Amino acid sequence: MTSNPWTADALVERYDQVRSHTERLAAPLSPEDQTVQSMPDVSPTKWHRAHVTWFFETFVLAENESGFAPFQDKYWFLFNSYYEAVGPRYNRAERGVVSRPGAHDVGVYRGNVDTRMRDLVATLDQGALEKLTSTIELGFHHEQQHQELLLMDIKHVLSLNPLQPVYAGAPEPASEPDQLGWVDIAGGLVEIGHRGAGFSFDNELPEHQVYLEPYRLADRLITNGEWLAFMADGGYRRPEFWLSDGWAKVKTEGWDAPFYWLNLDGVWLEHTLNGTWPVNPGLPVSHISHYEADAYAAWAGKRLPTEAEWEHGVRQAGPGEDPDSVGNLADTESYHPRAAGPATGKLRQAYGDCWEWTSSAYLPYPGFHPAAGAIGEYNGKFMSNQMVLRGGCALTPPGHTRASYRNFFPSAARWALSGLRLADGGAPTKEVAA
Amino acid sequence: MTSNPWTADALVERYDQVRSHTERLAAPLSPEDQTVQSMPDVSPTKWHRAHVTWFFETFVLAENESGFAPFQDKYWFLFNSYYEAVGPRYNRAERGVVSRPGAHDVGVYRGNVDTRMRDLVATLDQGALEKLTSTIELGFHHEQQHQELLLMDIKHVLSLNPLQPVYAGAPEPASEPDQLGWVDIAGGLVEIGHRGAGFSFDNELPEHQVYLEPYRLADRLITNGEWLAFMADGGYRRPEFWLSDGWAKVKTEGWDAPFYWLNLDGVWLEHTLNGTWPVNPGLPVSHISHYEADAYAAWAGKRLPTEAEWEHGVRQAGPGEDPDSVGNLADTESYHPRAAGPATGKLRQAYGDCWEWTSSAYLPYPGFHPAAGAIGEYNGKFMSNQMVLRGGCALTPPGHTRASYRNFFPSAARWALSGLRLADGGAPTKEVAA
Amino acid sequence: MTSNPWTADALVERYDQVRSHTERLAAPLSPEDQTVQSMPDVSPTKWHRAHVTWFFETFVLAENESGFAPFQDKYWFLFNSYYEAVGPRYNRAERGVVSRPGAHDVGVYRGNVDTRMRDLVATLDQGALEKLTSTIELGFHHEQQHQELLLMDIKHVLSLNPLQPVYAGAPEPASEPDQLGWVDIAGGLVEIGHRGAGFSFDNELPEHQVYLEPYRLADRLITNGEWLAFMADGGYRRPEFWLSDGWAKVKTEGWDAPFYWLNLDGVWLEHTLNGTWPVNPGLPVSHISHYEADAYAAWAGKRLPTEAEWEHGVRQAGPGEDPDSVGNLADTESYHPRAAGPATGKLRQAYGDCWEWTSSAYLPYPGFHPAAGAIGEYNGKFMSNQMVLRGGCALTPPGHTRASYRNFFPSAARWALSGLRLADGGAPTKEVAA
Amino acid sequence: MTSNPWTADALVERYDQVRSHTERLAAPLSPEDQTVQSMPDVSPTKWHRAHVTWFFETFVLAENESGFAPFQDKYWFLFNSYYEAVGPRYNRAERGVVSRPGAHDVGVYRGNVDTRMRDLVATLDQGALEKLTSTIELGFHHEQQHQELLLMDIKHVLSLNPLQPVYAGAPEPASEPDQLGWVDIAGGLVEIGHRGAGFSFDNELPEHQVYLEPYRLADRLITNGEWLAFMADGGYRRPEFWLSDGWAKVKTEGWDAPFYWLNLDGVWLEHTLNGTWPVNPGLPVSHISHYEADAYAAWAGKRLPTEAEWEHGVRQAGPGEDPDSVGNLADTESYHPRAAGPATGKLRQAYGDCWEWTSSAYLPYPGFHPAAGAIGEYNGKFMSNQMVLRGGCALTPPGHTRASYRNFFPSAARWALSGLRLADGGAPTKEVAA
Repeated sequence: MTSNPWTADALVERYDQVRSHTERLAAPLSPEDQTVQSMPDVSPTKWHRAHVTWFFETFVLAENESGFAPFQDKYWFLFNSYYEAVGPRYNRAERGVVSRPGAHDVGVYRGNVDTRMRDLVATLDQGALEKLTSTIELGFHHEQQHQELLLMDIKHVLSLNPLQPVYAGAPEPASEPDQLGWVDIAGGLVEIGHRGAGFSFDNELPEHQVYLEPYRLADRLITNGEWLAFMADGGYRRPEFWLSDGWAKVKTEGWDAPFYWLNLDGVWLEHTLNGTWPVNPGLPVSHISHYEADAYAAWAGKRLPTEAEWEHGVRQAGPGEDPDSVGNLADTESYHPRAAGPATGKLRQAYGDCWEWTSSAYLPYPGFHPAAGAIGEYNGKFMSNQMVLRGGCALTPPGHTRASYRNFFPSAARWALSGLRLADGGAPTKEVAA
Repeated sequence: MTSNPWTADALVERYDQVRSHTERLAAPLSPEDQTVQSMPDVSPTKWHRAHVTWFFETFVLAENESGFAPFQDKYWFLFNSYYEAVGPRYNRAERGVVSRPGAHDVGVYRGNVDTRMRDLVATLDQGALEKLTSTIELGFHHEQQHQELLLMDIKHVLSLNPLQPVYAGAPEPASEPDQLGWVDIAGGLVEIGHRGAGFSFDNELPEHQVYLEPYRLADRLITNGEWLAFMADGGYRRPEFWLSDGWAKVKTEGWDAPFYWLNLDGVWLEHTLNGTWPVNPGLPVSHISHYEADAYAAWAGKRLPTEAEWEHGVRQAGPGEDPDSVGNLADTESYHPRAAGPATGKLRQAYGDCWEWTSSAYLPYPGFHPAAGAIGEYNGKFMSNQMVLRGGCALTPPGHTRASYRNFFPSAARWALSGLRLADGGAPTKEVAA
Repeated sequence: MTSNPWTADALVERYDQVRSHTERLAAPLSPEDQTVQSMPDVSPTKWHRAHVTWFFETFVLAENESGFAPFQDKYWFLFNSYYEAVGPRYNRAERGVVSRPGAHDVGVYRGNVDTRMRDLVATLDQGALEKLTSTIELGFHHEQQHQELLLMDIKHVLSLNPLQPVYAGAPEPASEPDQLGWVDIAGGLVEIGHRGAGFSFDNELPEHQVYLEPYRLADRLITNGEWLAFMADGGYRRPEFWLSDGWAKVKTEGWDAPFYWLNLDGVWLEHTLNGTWPVNPGLPVSHISHYEADAYAAWAGKRLPTEAEWEHGVRQAGPGEDPDSVGNLADTESYHPRAAGPATGKLRQAYGDCWEWTSSAYLPYPGFHPAAGAIGEYNGKFMSNQMVLRGGCALTPPGHTRASYRNFFPSAARWALSGLRLADGGAPTKEVAA
Repeated sequence: MTSNPWTADALVERYDQVRSHTERLAAPLSPEDQTVQSMPDVSPTKWHRAHVTWFFETFVLAENESGFAPFQDKYWFLFNSYYEAVGPRYNRAERGVVSRPGAHDVGVYRGNVDTRMRDLVATLDQGALEKLTSTIELGFHHEQQHQELLLMDIKHVLSLNPLQPVYAGAPEPASEPDQLGWVDIAGGLVEIGHRGAGFSFDNELPEHQVYLEPYRLADRLITNGEWLAFMADGGYRRPEFWLSDGWAKVKTEGWDAPFYWLNLDGVWLEHTLNGTWPVNPGLPVSHISHYEADAYAAWAGKRLPTEAEWEHGVRQAGPGEDPDSVGNLADTESYHPRAAGPATGKLRQAYGDCWEWTSSAYLPYPGFHPAAGAIGEYNGKFMSNQMVLRGGCALTPPGHTRASYRNFFPSAARWALSGLRLADGGAPTKEVAA
């Protein structure tokens, strides 16, 4: 995790930006909304708000504030997510039974930590500041991850409510998918991983060489309209397209459409943060598992890209390292993926629409070393039974993602804002007999 | 379900009393507290508040209000507890994921139905009033049952919170158990079941004859102090005291004390609605399952009474039909069972401390007929795999219980405010070999 | 458990009869058949054969044989079913993973214990014989219970085999149900429980008084043909007939017919020990749960009898105490219930066709005392969450049942050979609104 | 799947060899042993024997035998393991309830198919022979995989039997681990995957280039003695060594030693196919999950090799492509891994002791194409949530494995004969803070 040089003022300004964005996302949610945990993977909104605060209190204040005392002893236990080295922690699946502290109490906790953080940074000399910056900057990116999760989670909570509540915004106008184009990439022995002076997580390091055969990538994401064609052709009924584990899920879970789709009298509707609306054919398909993405690719006679193919391709033929050049959430506040727009001969929708499933398992890069101490638990210990997703999505906060960013979820996860982009050539293609 | 003659004014006055009591019980609870469902058996406070309102809207207003329209269509579905005849209903185990309507929205719903109920009663002629009274009166008793459940449920919710919140009140001063006395009852062919003009549920009918051998009942409930002696003698480690199903629970659930007890550095504490305090030896033991009550009786060389023995005994040698003569919740607001007080030669603690497990399965009385229509689902369909409890408890609202009242829970249930009274002679005694 | 006076010769002769019958029942089963445990409730045939042998070794030989040593130390642990007082025991649900001892090894074990039992009885003086007789006689009845279970269990094992194996015999010719008649019984204060000098289990004691309103019983069991009418009228789709727990089972288990029925292209077939055949309308319906029996009675506007009504009724208006007068399994070897035969004005099919569900929970009789020591675990500790069945069935060995016999299963159990007889008048009738 | 040129005679001779070896492995097992399924992952011995026969009947005879008719229609359904394209199949987890066909019936089935296979091969002309050979050869390797599984599975079955049965053989004499050495490998752009004319599975293809940093491999497997040191240092109690999913397993499953170890009064014993014996410090540790292997490597400050590192390393510095040069099962019949023997400067124990966990997820090679039709389901559809193991083990039949062989199991699997070899340098190393 490398770090930019920061002044104290710039650090506080960024701190305030990030922290305020969290509160702005929580603002439309009632105390009751903020309390619910709708499944074990989901955390209550007020837990997210408290946990990201606990991160600063634990990893910055506890070791640097003079005369440090925790805001509340029990919060230490309640708002630890998974750091074994910090001590015992509250059972994740039961976050939804903790009604207190309430939403307002969490606001008080946030304000207290904010004041202490500002005070701490103001009193640091340059040397101390430099030492602390990388942890504080990690706290920014950690909080941004939880901003995205907060939205994914509340989307799930509201989806189960028969009153069909709207979080914010209005739906996109109906549109039709345009032609899918392909972009050729040469491959060879290429560099993969984070480079340069900016921030990255430890799992993006070290930069290293990978050999790639020539390949090509679709120039946009697969759309709802194309997904409907897959469904109409028996996509969810024909085992020949599916990984064995995926087919087992289809049968045991009764999957017959993406996660938030529901069929009302023959019409497919989709639950979104903007409300429940007819499926829009021109928008990217979203909330699909890795199994579904893989089955679609098999049906299409194509495959998913590896994560190295994705990263190299986006650098060579897409928006490059810097997602801010293509814009995302900040522009629209739709909280939903958008249509691809006209073809450009480059890779479209790489950062701000859907996280893209790859065919790569989430494993350490050659030479990977987690950081020492509790912070070292951040990424490495999750490198098991998960697949990598690349890009970013409509819920990703501005400034949070990049070409080397490695997101990850289990193959069956569907509540994340995930979609797919096809690949072809070079690497694995599944071929299904007629 | 028989019914007193009521005037319209008296009916409205009682309606206001019952409805206000519910809101008073919910008042100390935050919107977040009211949202949580801590296990499938528990319902959120705001669900209780809405469901009892739905009962009046469905069974009184829908059939009698001119130009009836539901307050909110979806509430019809959300707040039906188990009435199959009313239509589909929301899955019980997922009441805790419904953040909306919120606590305040439920208050608005309650106010709307209250106004319409008052308007309806004001416009009824005497004949219509007489026809409706029994349903409205059932609504009172239904709401009172939920007042008790609301308190049992929030006790469970708060027990899981590491902050150890207090609902209300202060604990009783520490006291020691006095001597346990016995009261002899003659038995013979006796009358069991509800009699007279007052209200009862259908499961208390018809009054009928049962033959009882002579027997005796303990003159008070078993105390925490006596329970500690049972524990010290291996009560939770010796299978010879236990029903087979009960022993299986001891092993799989790790039972080693009553439900809300926790051992902190060798001291037994008890979670109560007044906070968490050292176990008080003179108070009745509470929150025990039928299995534990039965095992205690076996250990003591005694047995539990049958429900007929309890009912006949309380009429002959206790406070009789009318629990108000002995006082309960209304007097103390302790929300907790109290010490027995000095011996009187009669049966003490019969109504206002703990529901008392009997050895009787919850089954229909000879000649039992459920009411016609959806209301007939009130009691009869639950007559399976449950045991009868008699009396009342510190959470039972004033005017709600009586000698013939049949409460019921599964043998393993522990979150209800349940205790035990021993019986001897006449009916079954378990004898354990040394 | 009272006991007849036995000579040593008579005891050995009876011992040989009972023991041989077990081996005869196992004879058609291969070593593989005898190994399978098809669900936790089912035990492998060779386990049954060994367990009943262990009973004699543990409760007779261990305490009376001079120089006793167990045949095999580990068998002590493997073949204990549930006696806590005897020591640790092998997990019931995993009996099917124990391939050794094999079927032949179990035969060797049986022969060894048989020899030692005969030797022991031959050497006892009259006083010692009298003391031991009741335990040996309990062993006979225990083994007979397992003979019945062995058949119920292997029926389940074979039912899951796609090859549809036949255990024995040939099916009954197709027949139509005759008219259902009713027999009136006066009731009053009647005697219930075992009487006289013959053997009984402890749960049939003590004889005691029960008050019964006048009632009537159907003169035969409900038939498959009548059950088909219930199904055709939506019996498995209409919640108004069902106990709440029963309806939950209908939904979660997908019940739509009795346990061993399967629908092949619109025709209902039934798996039996004689093979798989079209459902025979004139035979008693069998392998139904208590929930289904109760729902049928509700649909028919009738009810199930209490166990006291059944016992008193069979003594007054049926075959009396002695089932051998009406014949059962020994006559036919069909291992299946038979048609009722012509009406006689008395109660038919009381002992040798299907165990009859009653509306009574399995609870101790007034004054019940289990025996001291491990044998006391035989019945009493199971008096929880089970319903009483009365009569006997086509799998019950000759000489095993009687009017006071109390069989018991959980309400949802379906693999026992259970059926139903309707009652009316006096006691509870469920009334379903149109 | 490429294939050697075979004559008809050579094909029949090899067929007889492979088929006989299966029967020889089953010979010490009783019909009861062959019936048991001790957990869902385990298949009964007689199922293995039948399933490998079904493979030849389905994929060779059905399409080539003139006038083909299946030996038994229902076997088609019973003995299909997972081929969706062949039709419905029997539920895997319930293989243990199918007592028929019995062990002898399966022998008859095997004989029948053997005769027909020989007849078929005898009648083929050269062109037809060439076309069929690759499927028949696949059948050989398929049967060999099941020979290995048969032994792993029966090891599990017998491990649960309190009589502690021995399958065969005698234990190795106790030995101490020698020094662990390291072998340096240069890396670079290397070729991975099957090459040459011999047989391989489709998942070993295509041969392709991978870039490797320089690295080194341990010259032998980790021993039981070394594992005891890991345990003594808190290996199973310190979360810092573990992947998050692995630590969850440690807690929920109570892992505290390898799968077949049991602690009797402070002494560690190990269940083996030779009986239950004290753990032998000089033998390779076995029956560990990927999680345990990974945790050990973290504790040792090393890592697991990637599958490419393993394959390239074994070719460069070990026994090469051909495992027969180092010997395995055929030599010893110990059915257990052996001590490493003296150091040689090369990689020892690569093929005949324990399957070696790698750090690579089981995913398709670049350009992988499954075969068309049902045979295409052989490997590709399992490329999800599994880790690759390399080498071979003491249960692997002679001639079955090779340098490019990719075995795979889920990270938590422990009943396979799996061990670990450490790697260092180049690729990922986990570093645990003190």
